Amino acid sequence: MNAYKCDYIGVIRTPFTDLQGMPIQPCGAREVTGEVVINPELQEGLKDLDGFSHIYLIYHLHKAAQKKLTVVPFMDTVPRGVFATRSPVRPSHLGLSIVELLSVEENRIKVRGVDILDGTPLLDIKPYIHAFDCPENASSGWMTADRKEVEDKRSDQRFIEKSEL
Amino acid sequence: MNAYKCDYIGVIRTPFTDLQGMPIQPCGAREVTGEVVINPELQEGLKDLDGFSHIYLIYHLHKAAQKKLTVVPFMDTVPRGVFATRSPVRPSHLGLSIVELLSVEENRIKVRGVDILDGTPLLDIKPYIHAFDCPENASSGWMTADRKEVEDKRSDQRFIEKSEL
Repeated sequence: MNAYKCDYIGVIRTPFTDLQGMPIQPCGAREVTGEVVINPELQEGLKDLDGFSHIYLIYHLHKAAQKKLTVVPFMDTVPRGVFATRSPVRPSHLGLSIVELLSVEENRIKVRGVDILDGTPLLDIKPYIHAFDCPENASSGWMTADRKEVEDKRSDQRFIEKSEL
Repeated sequence: MNAYKCDYIGVIRTPFTDLQGMPIQPCGAREVTGEVVINPELQEGLKDLDGFSHIYLIYHLHKAAQKKLTVVPFMDTVPRGVFATRSPVRPSHLGLSIVELLSVEENRIKVRGVDILDGTPLLDIKPYIHAFDCPENASSGWMTADRKEVEDKRSDQRFIEKSEL
């Protein structure tokens, strides 16, 4: 086997219906709310999630038509290896965001800080656990932009194939 | 489409050949080194990765035969919704670890802090970027164990089907 067929567990609803002009990371969409809608038969798995302030969403970047090994990231002017970036044109087309959890009601999770396209298929939800997930003394290579720059940055056409829009 | 077929990009090599007795999170395997071996045709995508101190690995929990919606996590005695845990029996069978990057040489990445089974198929690598990935004031619901407890905890049989071993 050289691939894994992963079932969708739900869909992500956000105000972003167009890739262009989207925030490029959750911290650039801090006030943007959205809804994660889980398939009803999986609702039982959401129990206890509402105790966490933040969750990971792993999703399929289903509008990223291209796969590239070298990209110029939104926060840079220099070509970089795609695995050293968060670019959607990565070979896996997997997206990862940490969003703030506002509430859980039946099979719907209200979240804030979504940098995700409306209609994006969801693959997994995991709780953000500070003790596991925030390594001490981390350094961030080429990515020297401060949080303010990332918050203000918006996506453009570079990762979009027009035929996909 | 209700599933996504995601190509493997490589394999994760670790000292853990048996699920039983494994650390349950990277912080419990802080001194354990391993190697991430990328398919040679994707090596170009690793450029610039060595500037980052930590990376995310997203992988297929290929030995987690079961899918459950309610589990008793390693760090708890109470049944929890699976999406409020890091349990491998989650519907997606997707794993996520933050590991320390030691070096990149050709298509091989030396890492430290691997809580992953040897031979695990890799789906994606992303850089850990503190400005995106460490939300302020995060709270962790039922997960009240401190880092020391997590470091000391080892997995047992609860997520293993014997037929898979």
